[in-house]
Amino acid sequence: MERPPLWLMRQAGRYLPGYQNIRAKHSFWELCHSPALCTQAAMEPMERFALDAAIVFSDILVIPQALGMQVSFEGHQGPKMTKPLKEVAQLHAWNVPKLLEALSFVPEAVRHLRGVLGEEYGLLGFAGAPWTLLAYMFEGHADKNFAVARAMLHTQPEFAHKAMDILADILIGYLEAQCEAGADAVQLFDSWGGLLNAEDYARFALPPIQKVAKALTGKNRRLLLFVRDGQHLLPLLAQCGCQGISLDWRIPFQQAAAQLPNHCLQGNLDPALLLASPEVVREETRKLLAAMRARNHYSHCIFNLGHGIFPQTNPECVSALCEEVALAA
Amino acid sequence: MERPPLWLMRQAGRYLPGYQNIRAKHSFWELCHSPALCTQAAMEPMERFALDAAIVFSDILVIPQALGMQVSFEGHQGPKMTKPLKEVAQLHAWNVPKLLEALSFVPEAVRHLRGVLGEEYGLLGFAGAPWTLLAYMFEGHADKNFAVARAMLHTQPEFAHKAMDILADILIGYLEAQCEAGADAVQLFDSWGGLLNAEDYARFALPPIQKVAKALTGKNRRLLLFVRDGQHLLPLLAQCGCQGISLDWRIPFQQAAAQLPNHCLQGNLDPALLLASPEVVREETRKLLAAMRARNHYSHCIFNLGHGIFPQTNPECVSALCEEVALAA
Repeated sequence: MERPPLWLMRQAGRYLPGYQNIRAKHSFWELCHSPALCTQAAMEPMERFALDAAIVFSDILVIPQALGMQVSFEGHQGPKMTKPLKEVAQLHAWNVPKLLEALSFVPEAVRHLRGVLGEEYGLLGFAGAPWTLLAYMFEGHADKNFAVARAMLHTQPEFAHKAMDILADILIGYLEAQCEAGADAVQLFDSWGGLLNAEDYARFALPPIQKVAKALTGKNRRLLLFVRDGQHLLPLLAQCGCQGISLDWRIPFQQAAAQLPNHCLQGNLDPALLLASPEVVREETRKLLAAMRARNHYSHCIFNLGHGIFPQTNPECVSALCEEVALAA
Repeated sequence: MERPPLWLMRQAGRYLPGYQNIRAKHSFWELCHSPALCTQAAMEPMERFALDAAIVFSDILVIPQALGMQVSFEGHQGPKMTKPLKEVAQLHAWNVPKLLEALSFVPEAVRHLRGVLGEEYGLLGFAGAPWTLLAYMFEGHADKNFAVARAMLHTQPEFAHKAMDILADILIGYLEAQCEAGADAVQLFDSWGGLLNAEDYARFALPPIQKVAKALTGKNRRLLLFVRDGQHLLPLLAQCGCQGISLDWRIPFQQAAAQLPNHCLQGNLDPALLLASPEVVREETRKLLAAMRARNHYSHCIFNLGHGIFPQTNPECVSALCEEVALAA
């Protein structure tokens, strides 16, 4: 392949009619807990577009759920959860082996997907990064600011460190299980990492990621990290220990290539363009491909979006993107 | 004064009981349209805390409202508006002088506030920046991604440019009227500027800001610009034409001071700290003051937050902040 490999964050998401059909019959959590339905959802974009890798259908909130929180999605307000994390004593109930057992349906979904996908395609697993998981558990619901969670880092720093350290242990076992089940690589989503300034990110969010990265790279697993809104965190990301960095759409690819010469870079088309027109998508895809080609002819590059696909995305724009990447070969 | 002047974005907001009392009797728009109620809301933090400036109570969405959209706030989902901007023909109905007449209740609120505040305190006016206003008008509601609006920049760039150029003309008249009514300075809030990458920001969002800045500085008015989430836009902000830059909490003050040596810098305490404890606030306030002192002893510095005060803020933390800044004198 003389072009960068291609997959798209949330490629199996709400913009696809097949996904909508599954959801018409099944709740979101029924879908996530059924390996067969997860495979059906994950395969739809593979059949429809010229993608190089599938991603297991799941959600980062399976971990809080397995820890005993009920996670519900009401309307378009994002997830809400019961029993927010308020006291360090709650951590005593966190039993890592038991939890990994409770989460085994996700590696099972990876195994099922690998069976249907075959060996010729890539397969990705994923999980939420420790700070993002903790942000939901502290706040108790999705919030564009997560002000309560951010304040708790400062009022109860030891509690936060302790919780994220255990979350790192959970993630090591959980991601390793996904790799054993057939994932070629796993991605950590630090969806709310960008809310922290560099000082807080370095102090709180980075160390547990480094712990996860050290454990997985020690087993020759491949790990990618995506920090949404992490434009100010690029120098820190160089130290995360993951082989690959998935770039937010606001980080110029060339800048990242200069600052992170030794990392695999997954970049970073603005997903809002997929609501525009196929012509716009083709033009912007060509621009990004040119930037990747300048990096030693696509060396250590993966073509992706700079954030997950939006529900309003026009599938024809996704086709246009895939066709343009194929033309780069 | 041998310390930086102090005010806080959203200092008159929902965290204050007096504001809640007003809102128990009046809708949000009743409040915004009544100069007397606006003054009452704006004065509460002045009476409670040792602040150096008041800010007129208003909302950036008064402009879309005056343009004929109905703007409603339902639950905690943020504003929704009727009649989103879809066709360039809609711009023909935008009559700048008529609109400024419709918006005159805001300069009136500035004048009323100045009468009560007296001359010894500073007084700020404000407005939404052109891209942020357009984002709401294109999207039709608040959205953490504004994907529809961002896509429209690419499908209908001329429409977007034209709309923002007219918005710039509106802002010039509107902000000048606030200055004539007694505002010492005015701030543009580009709340959604950070959603654009630098290329799109330079192409779309910056030119109308420069137009506004040129017109107002030509009249010796003082203009500040706040771009939320604009960590990646700092080099562009240097070219905005405003004398002052209000820094997002994720931009290190020292870095901004190095990159913007000729601008007044308004920085930038993380507002999430005001949900923590007075002790934490004092410590972090002292750190930021030290960074400001290093800039030629507070020269061209204003002490503020790096984003508006959150509704869950503890007023005691605001007191602690104000006391620490006073101690710097």
